Amino acid sequence: MKNSLGANTIVPTTPVWVVGTYNQEGKPNVMTAAWGGVCCSQPPCIYVSLRKATCTYSNIVGRKAFTVNIPSEAYVKEADYFGIASAKNVDKFSVTGLTPEKSNLVDAPYVKEFPLVIECKVIKIVEIGLHTQFIGEIMDVKADSTVLNEKNLPDIEKVKPIIWNIAEMSYHGVGKGLGQSFSIGKEVKPKKQK
Amino acid sequence: MKNSLGANTIVPTTPVWVVGTYNQEGKPNVMTAAWGGVCCSQPPCIYVSLRKATCTYSNIVGRKAFTVNIPSEAYVKEADYFGIASAKNVDKFSVTGLTPEKSNLVDAPYVKEFPLVIECKVIKIVEIGLHTQFIGEIMDVKADSTVLNEKNLPDIEKVKPIIWNIAEMSYHGVGKGLGQSFSIGKEVKPKKQK
Repeated sequence: MKNSLGANTIVPTTPVWVVGTYNQEGKPNVMTAAWGGVCCSQPPCIYVSLRKATCTYSNIVGRKAFTVNIPSEAYVKEADYFGIASAKNVDKFSVTGLTPEKSNLVDAPYVKEFPLVIECKVIKIVEIGLHTQFIGEIMDVKADSTVLNEKNLPDIEKVKPIIWNIAEMSYHGVGKGLGQSFSIGKEVKPKKQK
Repeated sequence: MKNSLGANTIVPTTPVWVVGTYNQEGKPNVMTAAWGGVCCSQPPCIYVSLRKATCTYSNIVGRKAFTVNIPSEAYVKEADYFGIASAKNVDKFSVTGLTPEKSNLVDAPYVKEFPLVIECKVIKIVEIGLHTQFIGEIMDVKADSTVLNEKNLPDIEKVKPIIWNIAEMSYHGVGKGLGQSFSIGKEVKPKKQK
């Protein structure tokens, strides 16, 4: 018998994604979102869900583009700050000393110091409720050489992305490896015959 | 200067969610999806993106409901198996010995042995490309007593959810705590004055 915890979003796990945009005047902004994920393989798409009250919402509506920037563990304080502060009051890049770099593919800036960035063009806007979902087609994924493995793919132990645990309002790193996908499942042996 | 890795979905981090559904005859099925996340706070909503070729796709179209079941680390092999095997060929519950429990709120089964389950009614279907996105309103989150903390909320160190790292096709646990959200960001001190 399971305990009912009510209708809410205390669902593990969500990512910590820093969304990069330009406002109408071309000023770069960043905000942290946990309502984000991959939503299609072909075309490759991710989304971020945002409240209309945010500057990032207006920026994406205006520019039809955004970047998702993966902070490594070393930037957990900056990532949290990007979720607390508002571009209405401060220049978040200036305060943190991080650098907005203009994407050569989409009309949005990325965070130079973050090891992995995803550049997106908005292809669909879905009204859900308090949050609006912006679905972006991935135009490119870019990474620092320092986080790539021998196959030229991101090594998660070097990227060190952050996970958000909403139920306890805590940030976490990625833990130990548990096995290879599309592989360890083959070890499952039928428990009973029908 | 960042390295271009191309337009693809090698984006950290994605969850490992086991989607529970009934087919037309009322037979329970489960499949593992990594294209899932929270997409709205009010009403509380999550989504899963699925290919039309899957049985789960047809089941959700028919029943307009699904559950998301969070496997703990101990079930990583079963979770991988649920992503490899197809209900066209096997009864995945029977093979793994896991138990489908009928939800009292939505027309879908959940996995009794998994510590945390989310019951959803489909409120929106979004065609994107290869994947179709099913947005479900969360009707309830249910958890085993054994994974709750003193505030009656899921303790992530007890739930032990799994993360998928697509770039290296590896599963991971949740790692060490890095701080509290909406809190540690306040320690950021302005790096320069404008």
